Amino acid sequence: MKKTIIRKARKSDFEDIFKLIVELAHFEKLTPPSKTAKKRLFLDSFGAKRKNNILIAQIDNEITGYAFYFYTYSSFLARKTLYLEDIFISQKFRAKGIGKLMFKELINTAVKEKCGRMEWCVLDWNINAIYFYNKLGAKPLNDWIYYRKNLSPSPSPNGEGL
Amino acid sequence: MKKTIIRKARKSDFEDIFKLIVELAHFEKLTPPSKTAKKRLFLDSFGAKRKNNILIAQIDNEITGYAFYFYTYSSFLARKTLYLEDIFISQKFRAKGIGKLMFKELINTAVKEKCGRMEWCVLDWNINAIYFYNKLGAKPLNDWIYYRKNLSPSPSPNGEGL
Repeated sequence: MKKTIIRKARKSDFEDIFKLIVELAHFEKLTPPSKTAKKRLFLDSFGAKRKNNILIAQIDNEITGYAFYFYTYSSFLARKTLYLEDIFISQKFRAKGIGKLMFKELINTAVKEKCGRMEWCVLDWNINAIYFYNKLGAKPLNDWIYYRKNLSPSPSPNGEGL
Repeated sequence: MKKTIIRKARKSDFEDIFKLIVELAHFEKLTPPSKTAKKRLFLDSFGAKRKNNILIAQIDNEITGYAFYFYTYSSFLARKTLYLEDIFISQKFRAKGIGKLMFKELINTAVKEKCGRMEWCVLDWNINAIYFYNKLGAKPLNDWIYYRKNLSPSPSPNGEGL
């Protein structure tokens, strides 16, 4: 099997990464980023005021997967958390150990950054991913409910819903 | 009723905020920050490399509540999210509208920062909080499972569990 390289994404990788983001959105039955969101995503990932980090898996010249992450914080541990917003391996490259290689690199990064934890969310029907995460020694936080308040497209300046 | 002031926390508020953090940990039946964590928390909240933001509620000279937040990011929206790590009102100041005032300020901040969303987690037995969040127009993400991998105190450099 050809060697998988795990490395930080470069600006020139963006179009390929974006295709994977759209593939992930379809896989998760969610809305992929719009055209204007795509542009913001490029600037927020590679511009001067970078807000997030992208790791990619590459085989030959093909980008086969990506991980999108940033740092959150635990007030009780008083440590950073590496939060994995997305991790995705393209359908035809599954079950080749690429996800495992990416997680290894992410864990090394988190340890180097003195994080106390790594965290992420998974859709409850994604049993392949859940099996993989359990094998990693990760635990579901079953007694917590994740809440979201949407603010777009045009919330009231006085606080919508209040 | 005396007027509640909502404002950004100052360094001199830290001891009072820390008491509330410990009160929250006891309320959630979780481990409060250790002595060394307390020091890191001060530096990470008020030092030169600030990682998070603290908002407080004050009545006269008493700090009655705090909100601890930072920004995460949605790759699909390509927008920042205001993530609320903690929001807590001291037991004796509950049901006075303080939480509502804090949320109003947090939503205004999120809108000003062009966030697409606000997100937070709640313990599934905390029905008062859940009732309050539902009234705000927030929604539970019931089909997502939150996963955590603990990295402390001393994970293997090769990626524990891999």
